[in-house]
Amino acid sequence: MGKVLVLYHSDSGNTANMAQFVAEGVRSVDNTELRFKTIDEADADDLRWCDGLALGSPTNPGTVSWRMKQWWDELPPDLWSTIDGKIGCAFSSSGGWGGGAELACMALMIVMMNYGFLVFGVTDYVANQFTLHYGAVMAGEPRKDEEKEACRRLGRRLAQWVAVFINGRKDMLPVHEKLPE
Amino acid sequence: MGKVLVLYHSDSGNTANMAQFVAEGVRSVDNTELRFKTIDEADADDLRWCDGLALGSPTNPGTVSWRMKQWWDELPPDLWSTIDGKIGCAFSSSGGWGGGAELACMALMIVMMNYGFLVFGVTDYVANQFTLHYGAVMAGEPRKDEEKEACRRLGRRLAQWVAVFINGRKDMLPVHEKLPE
Amino acid sequence: MGKVLVLYHSDSGNTANMAQFVAEGVRSVDNTELRFKTIDEADADDLRWCDGLALGSPTNPGTVSWRMKQWWDELPPDLWSTIDGKIGCAFSSSGGWGGGAELACMALMIVMMNYGFLVFGVTDYVANQFTLHYGAVMAGEPRKDEEKEACRRLGRRLAQWVAVFINGRKDMLPVHEKLPE
Amino acid sequence: MGKVLVLYHSDSGNTANMAQFVAEGVRSVDNTELRFKTIDEADADDLRWCDGLALGSPTNPGTVSWRMKQWWDELPPDLWSTIDGKIGCAFSSSGGWGGGAELACMALMIVMMNYGFLVFGVTDYVANQFTLHYGAVMAGEPRKDEEKEACRRLGRRLAQWVAVFINGRKDMLPVHEKLPE
Repeated sequence: MGKVLVLYHSDSGNTANMAQFVAEGVRSVDNTELRFKTIDEADADDLRWCDGLALGSPTNPGTVSWRMKQWWDELPPDLWSTIDGKIGCAFSSSGGWGGGAELACMALMIVMMNYGFLVFGVTDYVANQFTLHYGAVMAGEPRKDEEKEACRRLGRRLAQWVAVFINGRKDMLPVHEKLPE
Repeated sequence: MGKVLVLYHSDSGNTANMAQFVAEGVRSVDNTELRFKTIDEADADDLRWCDGLALGSPTNPGTVSWRMKQWWDELPPDLWSTIDGKIGCAFSSSGGWGGGAELACMALMIVMMNYGFLVFGVTDYVANQFTLHYGAVMAGEPRKDEEKEACRRLGRRLAQWVAVFINGRKDMLPVHEKLPE
Repeated sequence: MGKVLVLYHSDSGNTANMAQFVAEGVRSVDNTELRFKTIDEADADDLRWCDGLALGSPTNPGTVSWRMKQWWDELPPDLWSTIDGKIGCAFSSSGGWGGGAELACMALMIVMMNYGFLVFGVTDYVANQFTLHYGAVMAGEPRKDEEKEACRRLGRRLAQWVAVFINGRKDMLPVHEKLPE
Repeated sequence: MGKVLVLYHSDSGNTANMAQFVAEGVRSVDNTELRFKTIDEADADDLRWCDGLALGSPTNPGTVSWRMKQWWDELPPDLWSTIDGKIGCAFSSSGGWGGGAELACMALMIVMMNYGFLVFGVTDYVANQFTLHYGAVMAGEPRKDEEKEACRRLGRRLAQWVAVFINGRKDMLPVHEKLPE
């Protein structure tokens, strides 16, 4: 079984809403176990447990929220350098398009890289002119089909990479998923 | 007179289209002289001439296009460190939302910072959930009003900062521009 | 008088040590008023007051510390978009060279850009193979002459840009400062 | 056999020198096949061939060199989205510490992420205050032991991740490598 953690912080509910769709995507991959937690519910053991992590934060001034950052900064110091080799990806909701959600995703991936994660984006377009190359990004909450699908696709790809790389299920190698017809 | 250079590279025409609206914004500020050039038309003298620079590139794999990068890398070596203190901002068109245009704008601003520029984004929202906090970003070409206005606002803000900081016109200090009614 | 705020958070004392040298650089520019504060001592009025800001944080997992981030995230919401047009720069101490201090400086500058700041790095080399193109970066605390000088140069350049751009003292335009003989 | 490509561009020879040590690190992992190529020697088939890629570029104004960027921008368009799931890491030589090598590594990783790579840095310290959390970074060429070791460690870790994730050799999971005694 692949083990996937969806871990997020949300103030307004927008990132929480994204997280629900990310979790849907994770669940769409069989033989995958999901933990779905806010930063108030998760601790170092959840990080140790997971093979893959989808990490979500609001875009607060162009980067990760202080609450999400606090969660990482206050992990037990002896955790660091003992959990290398997990797979990570990011999602973020900002106040508007052009508001820094891509930069916030990069900040989240930088934190994960610091902990030895291998991080990725998704090449797929989920609709015309809508993709998630550096994580799933949103203005506000997901409303349109493609916005929801971007979140789902992120979670699905994470679970697929975990299946392929951690569980050795080469048959799960994602072929480039097609645009909806 | 403030001197503003709009300098861009465009393959598909999308970034060129953005540049036209950026130039409109520059022209909306009185006592501002505009040079509007592609990288094939511009040289080091244009850089030396300008007080402010709006720099535009397609988002090619998540960062600046090689042609735009070549333009900077092939500037005369003795230019570097002699033009510090100009004002810069960025714009970029990517294949889709979530496709890296914010990251490309950061790359453009990093190049300008290396040349001693002071770089900025724009706090204004130009419509509900549409802003340009780290430069004007677009999926494809600007079509909607707010997409065109984001480009205009970038050029306008650049010309305003040049007026305020370079030409000492404190009356040009932009008050936060309101959303269109 | 130019008004410069050196604002920092420090856990280990390393970033605090950098801040002292940044402040020295600020003081080296005449007609400049300095406020030197930790995040526990500063509030929104200090931000409003300043023309220029040198912002320092430890590099905690590759980006800004949660405590510094909290300071920004908990500013009064009505401050945002009312203080555009200040000048900012960054400094950060990480655990080691290659440990993310440049990325942390970028995160600090992204936060400032979100608040409408114009941000800059310094083209000068302060010694052979030692510069501060995207802010002053350090492994641990500044010990070598060039490490101290990088911090000083950052503060000095900030005060110079404030003199030139905010106070209209064109004579303060920094000529590219030479390497120490 | 794990397949690792070390691909680089170098003007001054500094990045080429780094690449040699990266290749040494790759060779230190058994059952690993190495291709060692400049951008003038490599083509899309080398990318298709590899399981893991160490990508190196000079830090030219704070980001990837135009020549390296050109190599990626001119790949056959139909390659994109067909090679997802490879493992990537970056190295870069800049003119000085604080000169943007970390930012250049991020740009290289952004390009690889766009092509569906999973990218990583290395948690290990290779000496007191010397690490490679976001790729191997250097001022000039590697001279000191720890500078050479940072490059080696990058190549070694890449080959280890390829062994673990692509070739299913779980015994190759790197335990956190200790500082040299």
